[in-house]
Amino acid sequence: MRKACVLGAGSWGTAQALLLSDNIDRVVLWGREEDGIESIKEERENKRFLPGIKLPSNIEISSDMAYALYDAELAIIAVPAQAVRGVVKSMAGYLEDKTYLVNTAKGIEIDTGMRMSQVVEDVLGGEIKSRFAVLSGPSHAEEVARKIPTVVTVASFKKETAFYVQDAFMTTYFRVYTNPDVAGVELGGALKNIIALAAGIVQGLNYGDNTKAALITRGLTEITRMGIALGGDARTFSGLSGIGDLIVTCGSRYSRNLRAGELIARGYSLPEVLDKIGMVVEGVYTTRIVYKLAAKMGIDMPITQACYNVLYEGKKPEEELNRIMSRQKKHEIEEIVNNIEGW
Amino acid sequence: MRKACVLGAGSWGTAQALLLSDNIDRVVLWGREEDGIESIKEERENKRFLPGIKLPSNIEISSDMAYALYDAELAIIAVPAQAVRGVVKSMAGYLEDKTYLVNTAKGIEIDTGMRMSQVVEDVLGGEIKSRFAVLSGPSHAEEVARKIPTVVTVASFKKETAFYVQDAFMTTYFRVYTNPDVAGVELGGALKNIIALAAGIVQGLNYGDNTKAALITRGLTEITRMGIALGGDARTFSGLSGIGDLIVTCGSRYSRNLRAGELIARGYSLPEVLDKIGMVVEGVYTTRIVYKLAAKMGIDMPITQACYNVLYEGKKPEEELNRIMSRQKKHEIEEIVNNIEGW
Repeated sequence: MRKACVLGAGSWGTAQALLLSDNIDRVVLWGREEDGIESIKEERENKRFLPGIKLPSNIEISSDMAYALYDAELAIIAVPAQAVRGVVKSMAGYLEDKTYLVNTAKGIEIDTGMRMSQVVEDVLGGEIKSRFAVLSGPSHAEEVARKIPTVVTVASFKKETAFYVQDAFMTTYFRVYTNPDVAGVELGGALKNIIALAAGIVQGLNYGDNTKAALITRGLTEITRMGIALGGDARTFSGLSGIGDLIVTCGSRYSRNLRAGELIARGYSLPEVLDKIGMVVEGVYTTRIVYKLAAKMGIDMPITQACYNVLYEGKKPEEELNRIMSRQKKHEIEEIVNNIEGW
Repeated sequence: MRKACVLGAGSWGTAQALLLSDNIDRVVLWGREEDGIESIKEERENKRFLPGIKLPSNIEISSDMAYALYDAELAIIAVPAQAVRGVVKSMAGYLEDKTYLVNTAKGIEIDTGMRMSQVVEDVLGGEIKSRFAVLSGPSHAEEVARKIPTVVTVASFKKETAFYVQDAFMTTYFRVYTNPDVAGVELGGALKNIIALAAGIVQGLNYGDNTKAALITRGLTEITRMGIALGGDARTFSGLSGIGDLIVTCGSRYSRNLRAGELIARGYSLPEVLDKIGMVVEGVYTTRIVYKLAAKMGIDMPITQACYNVLYEGKKPEEELNRIMSRQKKHEIEEIVNNIEGW
């Protein structure tokens, strides 16, 4: 009997439990009592986060971490980014040597600026690296749970680990690619939240499709620039965990980052916005961390800077957009020009 | 008195005349009598293609090619891709040595497989290359005409030509980047029509946002692969003329390629679809040309192949999507894996 567990019973955790239950005999979906895990257990449905989807009988529901991790060949982290350190700490005593560990939280730890793989390694030690992977890509949980065709990427330091995770998740409606670029996949998933926030602002100002497409594209250019500086591969950012995820986020009704940007554009202050949304809006924190990092490293990130100015410096979004539009004339991609004679 | 002309009085040609009229003293908008140029002249408005936008007094309307080109420092080609050769032939006798020539038509010539710059060179000779540029990017004419912030790229073989065109077009609401990669910008604009057609099919089948984002991202991967083989730079495809244009096209009510895909998905035959749309659907032809090219060159383009199978081989879209989803397991980006030890 193969067993897996999913730690975190939100919409994405529940959808992943459903996915894994197609390929693995037993799946334990773990959550805290205070997060309503008991009602999921009773109703065999996550009515709060994934209403209308019944859980098959090979998914067990538990709030017992030891029980969830016991004899599991695979454990998935599916809590918000800022909760990852806490969950990894509480799993430390129960995680078995054989268990593969997959993170699916997107973001950078606010207090440390660490990527999620760095948080995991910080808590569990370097030995975890060979069994660690990150899964990311354009994947609304609601659609995955309804078996709508979805394609993601899984990155790991070790090929065999990536292949294992690919096999565990892959079904006829969920296709998984492998990628060795852990830093790139993690950074794409985190940095895209800044651009989603900016896209929300542009949407809230009622600009057009041209403006939003340009923002996404130039946003991709600048997060790729930072991503390379932090050790990622440019091509990963143009892949599923980068532009793919950015496209789905920027077109989504579910994205908290997009929603936060819209509210900002409509004149709400940052504390009001965070209060209204009532959950962590990753892009708000990522913007601050990355703005400071870009300044320190001398990396040009005009959209991130504009977001920072709007969120933390009280600047008007319209003025920041005007400033971006009227910056000095530039080549689209400096790196291409450098290689061409006469340019 | 500086003078420019725009050849082609559709929505994009008219929007470009409006743009240029901000920076250049006189702009002649040229069109054929049979295309209703006389009514634009009388009404000072392009009621058919750009209703509600009055043309300022420094835009002249003419069906006289000699008059349009006389003493022009800049001429814009704004006709459909398959009409470019005809227009360039008819301008050949009047084009002055000093005139910069900018193509804004997107597509590949059906009969020859040529890019638009190759068609222009084929008609006018190699001397035109130093004064030729291509302008491309996410730019719905309707939004540009309403002065909604828009960002595009202009590519030329010669830096000074790119800078000249950048200056001619750039305003506070229309930002222009420069790029030396003419082939990449042209190929992005042409190949994206295949992916837009595929996105239309996915939309017509009522798949979700996950599916569409994955299709766009994996579409970008395969058109980049072909684009590199044909002489473009990978980074251009992740820029404004590639992914930027693809995003705006795939989210658009105006795109003929998207619309054609939707109709195909709903069971109409290709001739019925073309009849319904009543205009050239570039992606239909580009799919055929590129499918054959990919087969000849041994380049893996699964989405293009699926489009071809649906359009020309009578295959069902659902079956083609299933085939793509269940292909053998793959690395996301082969080129990254090649450089990493142990992978």
